[in-house]
Amino acid sequence: MKLLRFAVDGATHTGRLDGAAVVGFAGSPDLATLLDGSMPAEAGRWPLAAVTVLAPLPQARLFCIGLNYPKPHPLGGEVKGPANISYFIKHQAALVPHGAALRPPGVSVQFDYECELAAVIGRGGHRIAEADALGHVGGYTILNDGSVRDWQAHSVTAGKNFWQSGSCGPYVTTAEEVADWRELRLQTRLNGRTVQDSKAGAMFFGVEAIIAYLSTITPLLPGDVIATGSPEGTGATQKPPRFLTSGDALSFEVSGLGILANTVA
Amino acid sequence: MKLLRFAVDGATHTGRLDGAAVVGFAGSPDLATLLDGSMPAEAGRWPLAAVTVLAPLPQARLFCIGLNYPKPHPLGGEVKGPANISYFIKHQAALVPHGAALRPPGVSVQFDYECELAAVIGRGGHRIAEADALGHVGGYTILNDGSVRDWQAHSVTAGKNFWQSGSCGPYVTTAEEVADWRELRLQTRLNGRTVQDSKAGAMFFGVEAIIAYLSTITPLLPGDVIATGSPEGTGATQKPPRFLTSGDALSFEVSGLGILANTVA
Repeated sequence: MKLLRFAVDGATHTGRLDGAAVVGFAGSPDLATLLDGSMPAEAGRWPLAAVTVLAPLPQARLFCIGLNYPKPHPLGGEVKGPANISYFIKHQAALVPHGAALRPPGVSVQFDYECELAAVIGRGGHRIAEADALGHVGGYTILNDGSVRDWQAHSVTAGKNFWQSGSCGPYVTTAEEVADWRELRLQTRLNGRTVQDSKAGAMFFGVEAIIAYLSTITPLLPGDVIATGSPEGTGATQKPPRFLTSGDALSFEVSGLGILANTVA
Repeated sequence: MKLLRFAVDGATHTGRLDGAAVVGFAGSPDLATLLDGSMPAEAGRWPLAAVTVLAPLPQARLFCIGLNYPKPHPLGGEVKGPANISYFIKHQAALVPHGAALRPPGVSVQFDYECELAAVIGRGGHRIAEADALGHVGGYTILNDGSVRDWQAHSVTAGKNFWQSGSCGPYVTTAEEVADWRELRLQTRLNGRTVQDSKAGAMFFGVEAIIAYLSTITPLLPGDVIATGSPEGTGATQKPPRFLTSGDALSFEVSGLGILANTVA
């Protein structure tokens, strides 16, 4: 099932995708409360093309894993398998929904994209064992970890938190639709040209290890979004670097999860 | 004025300190909405000793500045004035209120305290000039940036986000009570012994520069908490290191802002 938030006729709803239509849920419950498999009553049906897709989890905490694929490091050198998981936090203000324009940072031209598989916690837990971790995943979505590379050199958090520099969505695909997250294929197209194309299984620390690690630090909660890092092919490591500019069209596709599309304002 | 949240007789209130009493505000408005100088009607009065002090801003975003005082680096070496501001984000789950017990990380013995002056945004803004920055500060509070040093070596965010490892409060002191933040004195006492004792004015990047920097990245919002870094004297840099252990009693005092007291569970 593909869960989403959307606006239509001046009202905000949550619901599910049904082919080329969206079906609303009665009472528009927070999607974070539906990731345990519960299924609310349905209320309303609209063509997908008639609604505006919104951020699926606008209140969620965003945990983002860094340096988790073999690739050239966007700030120079090579990323090798690190000894430990490394993470940072994004505030929601750094994200826009599917279909919305990304905001260039203004103070930098080094504006970059990063297509990532994001796991969404369905059942919370503290000190989750790797063997149990996938039982805590309620779904998956796509996160574009928008990055401003020169400010990322100040601190990772700075480069990853520019206002409306990244995106997330369009759906949360519930976990039962994903037989093996390692088989998911991540692809980014920039103005139609494929610039990232990797299997999620290439990541150094897998979804299970990441959940075990983060939940050792703090209890994970339903709705928490965990972005698992981006494979090679971002703009900073192209030769010459190819940073985002006004009018660029991006699509971030993860097989089975849909396509997250954004333009650059 | 000293604003606070508190619980008494099974209900949660916001209000203000009045000597040894607390005065409740009608409707218990979020303190973030009061930092523009507005003053709600009052409702109820209790002895301070009869109430439980709660986290003043439990929904706030937490921006934390690192390496902002001259000191030995807690992971080795010396902190010199860095070229750029460096920041990280804490989730609220990393904090407990005044009077509550800090939770040791369990997986590490390198559990440390950091007393910090925190500015609280009263009036939001994007790209705030340094010259205007203090006009956006609605108040100040104390933040203990609890740190787990060996996990901080994995990533700053990891070491700074252990569940209930830090604290914030007890009050938000409104800005008009602080004539010059540089004159504020930060002191930490561990089991009665003074271990940190510095003027806030010793920080490399001041409150004005920090607000200008962060608001270049993302619009600041009323209630945002900006912890400005901790001076020398944390446990990791004592010789030998003195990490926190069960039963330790900590008090974090910033002159004019009160005392944030916590034990270690």
